[in-house]
Amino acid sequence: MNLVLLLEEDFTSAQRVRLSGRRFHHVRDVHRAEVGQALKVGLLGDRLGRGLVTSLGEAALELDVVLEQEPPPKLPLTLIVALPRPKVLNRILASATSLGAARIVLLNAWKVEKSYWKSPRMAEENLLHQRLLGLEQAGDTVLPELRLARLFRPFVEEELPALAEGSRKLFAHPGAPRPCPRDLREPVTLALGPEGGWVEAEAASFQGAGFEAVSLGPRILRTETAVAALAGRIFGDT
Amino acid sequence: MNLVLLLEEDFTSAQRVRLSGRRFHHVRDVHRAEVGQALKVGLLGDRLGRGLVTSLGEAALELDVVLEQEPPPKLPLTLIVALPRPKVLNRILASATSLGAARIVLLNAWKVEKSYWKSPRMAEENLLHQRLLGLEQAGDTVLPELRLARLFRPFVEEELPALAEGSRKLFAHPGAPRPCPRDLREPVTLALGPEGGWVEAEAASFQGAGFEAVSLGPRILRTETAVAALAGRIFGDT
Repeated sequence: MNLVLLLEEDFTSAQRVRLSGRRFHHVRDVHRAEVGQALKVGLLGDRLGRGLVTSLGEAALELDVVLEQEPPPKLPLTLIVALPRPKVLNRILASATSLGAARIVLLNAWKVEKSYWKSPRMAEENLLHQRLLGLEQAGDTVLPELRLARLFRPFVEEELPALAEGSRKLFAHPGAPRPCPRDLREPVTLALGPEGGWVEAEAASFQGAGFEAVSLGPRILRTETAVAALAGRIFGDT
Repeated sequence: MNLVLLLEEDFTSAQRVRLSGRRFHHVRDVHRAEVGQALKVGLLGDRLGRGLVTSLGEAALELDVVLEQEPPPKLPLTLIVALPRPKVLNRILASATSLGAARIVLLNAWKVEKSYWKSPRMAEENLLHQRLLGLEQAGDTVLPELRLARLFRPFVEEELPALAEGSRKLFAHPGAPRPCPRDLREPVTLALGPEGGWVEAEAASFQGAGFEAVSLGPRILRTETAVAALAGRIFGDT
């Protein structure tokens, strides 16, 4: 937690915040905060700043907060990922958020097991929590937009063209002759397939929506590793 | 497991392999292999190829193996990471291996807790196992060299200059004025600090060894995310 992320409902007055629960325990036990110490804080959807610890009790602490700094800019990236195994989902949401993706779409695909959509990790609370963890890691306050697309074709063929308009449109497809481009200075919409890849009908849908098939090289990377490597490659100049 | 990684001792004759244990269970239960099926295989330190399942028993299977393809090239990267928490160590070893780092150094630093060096995960068997998992993921056969450097100064000041000779020498240092360079076409030695960063004396040692301080941008990334993002950024053209 490199940032104590505050919500509107934490404020007890204009500049005074009261924290209990997970954030309190983390600040007390990991940061080992004391009265008088300043912590890096940020208000969700708003600015970053400092919070001075003014009291520290058994179950809560209070901070005097000044917010004065803009959060880091987002990458102009819409990341579309085929819904991964529940075990992997949390890591991908947190790491894509920490990298600064502006928007994340979890998409169904032929090789996505149906049970993944019913995982408890798909509860709205968890989908929010994992993104908050990513913001706390990166020192950011702005949630990436999250969309769940449970039906492949209606999403890719009907919604995606508008969603991706004005961006460079790429989908990862093993064996594609073109390598993924690098150092782009434009918005990018990038789709990563499930373990085992997109089936040909899915690749055709992406192509029909104006997406270009790109190869990620000879190595097969785990999705969260691929997301980070591609973010570094595509936005190397940001 | 995108590759069944074979060891010399798995061979029962020149082209015949017998597998039991973890790889047997994975091939039987996850790949759901049957007699007559061909699997992607590779011999550790050697070539890739195909293994035809010739028998499948209760506790072992046999493959007829042909090795004919070179493994993917390594990134010309020596990655130096301050020893991370045990929980994180496995992920970093596997992901850095999957990305193709040629050499990994686990380095002590002021902000590395001493107990990390005594973790059971530091056992040689585990350090090997995690790299094998990274090779199986990526479809590679060549282990990255692994070095443990338990003493910061003797390593950085005495060994590192020779180890890094002829490479571009970079160490990540929050707030450094220069951003990490991109699209390099030369060997790179890159050092990533612990949570909390390098202390000034450590930064001075790196500078004394010819290393340049580079910034990774305004976001604080988890080490394994940073490793992948930097690999993509630095070797974007490979």
